[in-house]
This record gives sequence, C-alpha cells and structure tokens, in this order.
Amino acid sequence: MVMKIPDLFRKLARGPQIITLKDAAIISAFTGVSPGDLVVDAGTGSGFLAIYLGNLVRPSGRLVSYEKRGDFAKLARRNVEKAGLGKYVEIKQKDIFEGIDEKDVDVITLDMPEPWHAVKHAKKALKDGGFLVGYVPTVEQVRQFVLECRKSGLKHEQTVECVVREMLVGERGTRPQTKGIMHTGYLTFVRK
Amino acid sequence: MVMKIPDLFRKLARGPQIITLKDAAIISAFTGVSPGDLVVDAGTGSGFLAIYLGNLVRPSGRLVSYEKRGDFAKLARRNVEKAGLGKYVEIKQKDIFEGIDEKDVDVITLDMPEPWHAVKHAKKALKDGGFLVGYVPTVEQVRQFVLECRKSGLKHEQTVECVVREMLVGERGTRPQTKGIMHTGYLTFVRK
Amino acid sequence: MVMKIPDLFRKLARGPQIITLKDAAIISAFTGVSPGDLVVDAGTGSGFLAIYLGNLVRPSGRLVSYEKRGDFAKLARRNVEKAGLGKYVEIKQKDIFEGIDEKDVDVITLDMPEPWHAVKHAKKALKDGGFLVGYVPTVEQVRQFVLECRKSGLKHEQTVECVVREMLVGERGTRPQTKGIMHTGYLTFVRK
Amino acid sequence: MVMKIPDLFRKLARGPQIITLKDAAIISAFTGVSPGDLVVDAGTGSGFLAIYLGNLVRPSGRLVSYEKRGDFAKLARRNVEKAGLGKYVEIKQKDIFEGIDEKDVDVITLDMPEPWHAVKHAKKALKDGGFLVGYVPTVEQVRQFVLECRKSGLKHEQTVECVVREMLVGERGTRPQTKGIMHTGYLTFVRK
Repeated sequence: MVMKIPDLFRKLARGPQIITLKDAAIISAFTGVSPGDLVVDAGTGSGFLAIYLGNLVRPSGRLVSYEKRGDFAKLARRNVEKAGLGKYVEIKQKDIFEGIDEKDVDVITLDMPEPWHAVKHAKKALKDGGFLVGYVPTVEQVRQFVLECRKSGLKHEQTVECVVREMLVGERGTRPQTKGIMHTGYLTFVRK
Repeated sequence: MVMKIPDLFRKLARGPQIITLKDAAIISAFTGVSPGDLVVDAGTGSGFLAIYLGNLVRPSGRLVSYEKRGDFAKLARRNVEKAGLGKYVEIKQKDIFEGIDEKDVDVITLDMPEPWHAVKHAKKALKDGGFLVGYVPTVEQVRQFVLECRKSGLKHEQTVECVVREMLVGERGTRPQTKGIMHTGYLTFVRK
Repeated sequence: MVMKIPDLFRKLARGPQIITLKDAAIISAFTGVSPGDLVVDAGTGSGFLAIYLGNLVRPSGRLVSYEKRGDFAKLARRNVEKAGLGKYVEIKQKDIFEGIDEKDVDVITLDMPEPWHAVKHAKKALKDGGFLVGYVPTVEQVRQFVLECRKSGLKHEQTVECVVREMLVGERGTRPQTKGIMHTGYLTFVRK
Repeated sequence: MVMKIPDLFRKLARGPQIITLKDAAIISAFTGVSPGDLVVDAGTGSGFLAIYLGNLVRPSGRLVSYEKRGDFAKLARRNVEKAGLGKYVEIKQKDIFEGIDEKDVDVITLDMPEPWHAVKHAKKALKDGGFLVGYVPTVEQVRQFVLECRKSGLKHEQTVECVVREMLVGERGTRPQTKGIMHTGYLTFVRK
C-alpha cells in the first residue's frame, strides 16, 4: 500500500504538539502552496507542517524550516528523512527572530507563541503577493499579530478557525460524533 | 503580483455551483494528493476541484475530470486554460457511470448527486491504498454512498464536515463574524 | 447558598443518560414554557427534563411525565422529591404509545428512540398552538418524526442542534476549549 | 391560538438590537431563573430579555430592568404591556453604573458594552449564590469583565457561546442550513 501524507502524519515521531491535518490543509489552500514554490516555516517543532508543505512544492520548489532548539531540529530532520523529503525540505537550526536568509519567498508560516517578532523579517523575505500565515491558539495572540502586520504595511486578508466534525454512519443511524476537537488554533492570513 | 490558487478561485468563470476552497483543502489533505499523483475527478462542473487538485500533481502527475454535459466541459476547459494547467488537467466529456478509463489511480473524487453509481468503477480504477472521496450535501446521500462502498469491500475511513469561521479583528475588538456559511457538503473518505 | 436548577442538575441521581442543560434550555425557550402551563413529557428517564420544565410551570401549572419502566419511574420520583417539585411534577408509569390522558396540553416533549409512535396521541392532547418537541440523536430519527408529524397535519417549525462552546479566560490568553461535546441530539419543534 | 414567548419575540416592536431566543434560553438555564426569583437586568434596550426572564419569575417574583435612555425605556414599557407582564416587570430609567436599588437579587444580567463598571454594584445587590451574567460580542469585553469580576471576589463559572444550527428536512434529503448566524455574543456566568 502506498504511503500517503495522512499515513505519515500517523507514523512520524512526535515531540512538541503537532499541527492538525485540517489546519495544514487550510494553510496550504488559502495560500495556494504549489509545486515550485519557495516556502519558509518556523518554528519547526516535530516538522509536520514542514513535511506537509514540503511535499507540495516538489520537485522544483523548496521548503526551509527554522527551529532554534537543537533537539527539535534533530527530531524534525529524522521525520523529514522518513517522509522521503530530504531533497526538498531543509531544517535550519536558527531563531527566525534573527532574520530570514531566503528572498522572494512565496509563503511564510509562523507556528510559535509570539509570531509578531518575525513580521519585519517576513516582510523583507516575501515576494510581492506572497503570504504570511500566523498560527496561534489565543485571541490575544491573533490581535497582536494582526496589528503588527498592519503596522508593517502588510494586508490582513482574514483570520479563521477551522472545525472538522465527523459524521458517524452506523447501523442505528447517522449522527455527528459526540465529543471532539473544538479548537486547535486561529489561522491568520496576511499578504504582501 | 503572483497569481495563486486563491486568486484563481475568485477570477474564473462560474457556471454550476463550485466547491469551496475549504472543502478542496480537506479533500487534498485527507487523501494526501501530491506531485506525481494520478487523480480522477467527476463531475467537473466549472472545473474548480479539477484545477485545485491538478495544480498539486504537477509536473509529473495528471488529473482527468469526467463531465457528461458538453456546456460544462467547455466552460471547465476554458477555466483550466486560464489557470495555465492545460498540460496537466484533461476534461473528458463522458459519464463516469459508464466506466473509468484510467488504471492505478491515486485519488478519485465524486462531486455529484448519486456518487454510489460510480463505486464499482472507482474500485477497479484505484490502486491499492488509493482514496475515493464523495462530496454530497445531504445525510441521506452520505449514507447511501457509504453503504455502497462498504458493500463493495472498500473501507470507509470517515465522513466529515468542515466549518470555517472568520474572526474579525476590528478597532472595537475581536469577534467571530456574525453570519456565514454553515454548511456546504459532507466529505466522505473511503479507501481501497 | 440557594439551590438552583444548575446545581440540581449536578446533584441528582443519574440512571439513564440525562438531557443536557443546553438542550433543556432551547426546548423551554423555543416552546415558551411558562408558569401555569400544562406540560407532558416522555420518557422520563432520570427525570431531568421533567424537573427542568416542571420548575418553570409553577405554581399554577403542572408537568406529567410518562415512563414505562418501573425502575426509571422510581428513580425519577426520588429526584423530583429532592428537587422539591413533588406538588407540580407527576411521574406516571405508563407507555405514552398507549395514549395521553391529559387534554389542552401546552407543550409535549418526547425523549425516546421512536417518537413518531406518539404523534397521533400528542396531536389529540395538544391545545391549538401547542408545541410537540422530539429529541433524538440521529438524522434518520429526525426525518421519520418530521414526516409522521407532517402526515398528521402538524406544522414542522424547525429542527435544530445546539452547540455550546466554552471560552477559557486564562493567564496566557483567551481561547475556546480544546475538546468538548460536539453533538447530543437534534431538537424538532412541531406545532398544532 | 395561544400567544407564547416565541410568538411575542416575533411581534414586539424593535428598537435597539434584541437578544436572540437562544441566548435568552442559555442565560435562564445556566442561572436557573425560576418562579419567585428577583432578577435585575440592564440595559433594557427593547426589553426582550426583561420580558423573557420576567415571564419566568411569575407570579411571586419580579424583574427590574435598568435603562438610562428615555426612548428605549418607553419602547420597552410598551413591549412589556403588550406581553401582559406589566405586573411583574418594571422598567426603571436609571443608569445601572450609579447603583442597584434592589437587595438579595437572584440573577443580574448585563447586556451593555462595558459591563465591568456594574460589577461592584452587582456584587452588593446579589444574594449569596446569585448569578451575574455578562453578554458582550467581543473577546476583549469578555476578558475585561471576567478580570473585573475575579478582582471583586466573584467566581467566574464559565464563558460560553451558543450556536444553533437548523437542519432542513426536505424532499431531496436532510441537511444543515447553508447560511446562518455564526455569532451573536459571549455569555459569561459569574457567581457570588
């Protein structure tokens, strides 16, 4: 049987909390990540978002993921190798608040507690029309990130939350699942 | 400014009701559509799902979309050309209920009122581990599709609905949008 | 400290699954249960909906709850006494499918797997403008109940589901709860 | 046909934006408003929440609603009379920030932009175990209200939002409504 991204998400080693498939889906769709794109991601964590997006930019594109912690960077590199994406995904052990080395970036994703500190670097690194995405759990973080982006002259397109609810198709009838995930994080989309 | 998938979704010509970006996102993520994949889609409609998925399988993959109505097929072909995906996306004017010509297909998506009639063809065309996706608005359609898939020996992985809610970040505070889309369709994921 | 309905819901003895406070709230609001009303409820279960609505019809109204199982009726009677509502709430050990003894009823609530069998009795017992409410977990049950009501000449006003999501106000920010109840049951409101 | 609360909500005169039936429902259920209770409400607006709760405290209870604007107070009084609740509901033209005249209050509801200014008065007026409810649209208002309540020694029980989604039962199947109300306000429950 083929190994697909949803399979990988179940099998890779988990360190820090990983992004859900639904949120990775909305990030890639709302920014239009495509083959050939240059994507920058931070912080890497276990590397799941890097792997998800890195898979989509193949074969001519590239994903660079910034992670300041050595243990996370190592874990993520192992996961990238297991996913067979070593050629396309680079895990860089560096704090993104110190700057972004890449230029003309299509999409930058920030999965960290204080993404606003990376806004000025993101603005410089993005190509015109490129997207910056912030992924944070609280409303206060959303607000601080959006205000910083607006101050920097980036255009706030939208902030959304995505809820996926399962429908159970059983012998006794069809009904939504009783309990489930009600919140992971807010996704903020900003454009240069 | 670069033209990205989200931009395309706003600019292409619309005939029949089109799939939302959120649902296209969940379909691609939960099936792991990737560069190099062979994807079959039906019915084409305006071609938005074909374009969304066709963009992701580039450059070595291919998407074939079945549409029985000539006017829709024509409209979809124009949209595919505008999207610059003519090399990767083929719109085939044919009723998918009469059979699927492709073999070893990675993902098949069915956006039509009675997807259960295509299950036996889908089963034959899919590679092992490949995904079949049904996209229908009512619970009764979900049920009939799932039961037909189970009868055919395909594995029902899950049926979900995806709700995206916008958070407004305004001068007077942060709050969810007042009105919005509460339902588009149920997404059913089945695997060979 | 005073003992209020929300406190009671936490303290009463639980046998069969009890209705949630949110659903009891929507039932009472969408039917306008008020002091002086005559309300009929079935099946009683632990008696929580009977207690919730019985509390609201005081002092001149009355609630009669039908329960065919002796053990549930006994448990419910104990809960009614603990709630101090013995004067207003009567637990009747009888199958509602055999008929409703009361006349000119304001509101009838049915919390049971096959509420459609009680529709003809409910129609006879309700006053003009009175409400019949069905509370069931699956979509198939909703449909069968609504179709039976329409066939009987009752007016289907609406079927709804109610989702309550908690917002956590913590030191590190404000955010929705991570996990929670995504579905309890559908509430169908029908009127004579 | 009898005139019930849901009918009244459709027929009364509307000035300022009125509370939805779902939110009135959750407020009454989560605070356990009952016959005999003394309830204080502010600001009155069109008087819908006053009427909803005033109807439930009959005949031995009472609701007093504070409204500083004369035009709103007048409109609300007319609505109270039309609802036949003149004996139980008093509309007081007074700014609640200047104090609450009532003592031993069971429930206080605040539907206004800056409810935190009323917290110290509410604390004095509430009986032990009594509830204070804040109803505001933005997260920032929720936070400021909750923090002020905690500072005052009141116990924050929970903040929730309530979403009601309609299921359409049509000839072609059963499905959730396409568009609808996604947000009205957050309900904060605090207890003395």
